[in-house]
Amino acid sequence: MTDNTKSAEDRLIERYFRPLATDPGAFGLADDAAVLTPPPGCDLVLKTDGVIAGVHFFPDDPAENVGRKALRMNLSDLAAKGAKPVGFLIAVALAAGTDETWLTAFTAGLREDAERYCCPLLGGDTDRTPGPVSVAIAAFGVVPHGKMVRRSTAKVGDRVVVTGTIGDAALGVKLRRDGTLAERWRLSDIMAGHLEQRYLLPLPRNELAHAVLQYASAAMDVSDGLVGDLAKLCRASSVGAEIDVARVPLCDAARAVVTADPAEMETVLTGGDDYEIVLTLAPEKLPAFRAAADAAGVVITDIGQVTGGRGALFVSDGKPLSFARPSYSHF
Amino acid sequence: MTDNTKSAEDRLIERYFRPLATDPGAFGLADDAAVLTPPPGCDLVLKTDGVIAGVHFFPDDPAENVGRKALRMNLSDLAAKGAKPVGFLIAVALAAGTDETWLTAFTAGLREDAERYCCPLLGGDTDRTPGPVSVAIAAFGVVPHGKMVRRSTAKVGDRVVVTGTIGDAALGVKLRRDGTLAERWRLSDIMAGHLEQRYLLPLPRNELAHAVLQYASAAMDVSDGLVGDLAKLCRASSVGAEIDVARVPLCDAARAVVTADPAEMETVLTGGDDYEIVLTLAPEKLPAFRAAADAAGVVITDIGQVTGGRGALFVSDGKPLSFARPSYSHF
Repeated sequence: MTDNTKSAEDRLIERYFRPLATDPGAFGLADDAAVLTPPPGCDLVLKTDGVIAGVHFFPDDPAENVGRKALRMNLSDLAAKGAKPVGFLIAVALAAGTDETWLTAFTAGLREDAERYCCPLLGGDTDRTPGPVSVAIAAFGVVPHGKMVRRSTAKVGDRVVVTGTIGDAALGVKLRRDGTLAERWRLSDIMAGHLEQRYLLPLPRNELAHAVLQYASAAMDVSDGLVGDLAKLCRASSVGAEIDVARVPLCDAARAVVTADPAEMETVLTGGDDYEIVLTLAPEKLPAFRAAADAAGVVITDIGQVTGGRGALFVSDGKPLSFARPSYSHF
Repeated sequence: MTDNTKSAEDRLIERYFRPLATDPGAFGLADDAAVLTPPPGCDLVLKTDGVIAGVHFFPDDPAENVGRKALRMNLSDLAAKGAKPVGFLIAVALAAGTDETWLTAFTAGLREDAERYCCPLLGGDTDRTPGPVSVAIAAFGVVPHGKMVRRSTAKVGDRVVVTGTIGDAALGVKLRRDGTLAERWRLSDIMAGHLEQRYLLPLPRNELAHAVLQYASAAMDVSDGLVGDLAKLCRASSVGAEIDVARVPLCDAARAVVTADPAEMETVLTGGDDYEIVLTLAPEKLPAFRAAADAAGVVITDIGQVTGGRGALFVSDGKPLSFARPSYSHF
């Protein structure tokens, strides 16, 4: 017998979302709110970011990637702040045509990542929308009291370091939009697939969060393009930076693209969706940070230095580059 | 000179949202994330809820009410849990035609409520959407450790109490949809206006949160209709409830509606959007709770009792009512 006092919404939440709500503070999603007890001596770090079909992902992207991408965008910010994830809230608006197949894959992907990153679902809100599918996530992490790594604390003389490789996702989006580019850029299928995958599913650097907390003087995640994001960090810290473009780490596929079309270097440096970390640290801390990164299996690259000037200069062959649009913006 | 490293999105955030970010932990919205230090010995209570144009509000509702309603929906849950608000995150998706006039009014309303409820903006995400305007809020409150008021802790013999009046907003939505109803229901302009206002701008009972924490054995906010919400509380607590429909508090306008059309009593009891609190408490605590409510200026009404049965019975003239659709559901 169907319980007449349970709405279809209640049943949808029980079936698809409750399995992700493994934290006792989520009360199995059966209360109005969740409860979170931060460890003594810790601050909570809070972030919200979301995705909308047709804006942040293609409507025909695999459903299992959509929730994972939304969660990972937030996890990337927590990593850059040196915070350990503790949970998240989700607000999902489902378009009229969204069926159970989509929802099954969507929540399966989300569940996989909630487990992988030890970041359980704490609560949520599920609605129908006449518009496109959208997912807003609020994610929470913890840091020792007063220790959140800021953007505003870079010091003149620090090194500027990035994790992973830069520009892959921005090139991946271009490939998704125009399939003929793979040939023009002379990419193998594997290379093209790698760039597209980097757009579909970011790899936030949470395994490096503890090292960022220990060693970085300032940090932020690279989500709107390295040029614009580093400019923000410099502005917040009232410093400048000088970056050697030749040292910006590129994967083999991105290297092939800029060899075929040097103008694409601007896409790499300003395109966004990297979900890497850019951080500054005192030069003497670099060896210890590199050892921690090696141990975590994350490649890091020293790309330049913090200066007493203003703004982030990207220098190539001795000349500073200028960019038409340094940063991704929705407006 | 325009700072070329600041995107239009950065400027929009600075202009419209930064004035709401008065908490030092928001860093003026100029970092990746916010930081929150819960008072020692306190738990954080977390809630997310949102609104979508055409679903939760009419696209031509005053912009200053849209953000306030979204925030108040969340504040209402915090109040029912006995929690004191400490801040919120917001994810706003702006439709293509949303202009600066709308945004100015939207953020002005939100700012007024952030101040009124001592609930500052901690962080946000602003996007363009090809769909309707939507606003997702995650709100945070604090309670003494282990003291969040649950749904699952009602006890047989407890009284069932509601705040304010029930059904106003559900009738208000009907009036918004069909202007001829005011005449059929023989409502004065003032009465019709009162019901519409109750839909437009909920009055969460945060001034009663401390008394709920002190005296309630269980509580939840009434947002999807009293019948369905009380059924949820009973299910979570493994108890029943018997409610005297004649004692359910109605405002003068709602009383006039059910006099003109008794069938509208079902709308009143199941319609949702009340943002009142339904709570249970031991009978001997009722006088002290009533005194606290009087002091806070909130009317409370004893509408029935918790029983050893199952489900929430709404009894009218000695007979239990049955409802076609006990609870509002998006699905």
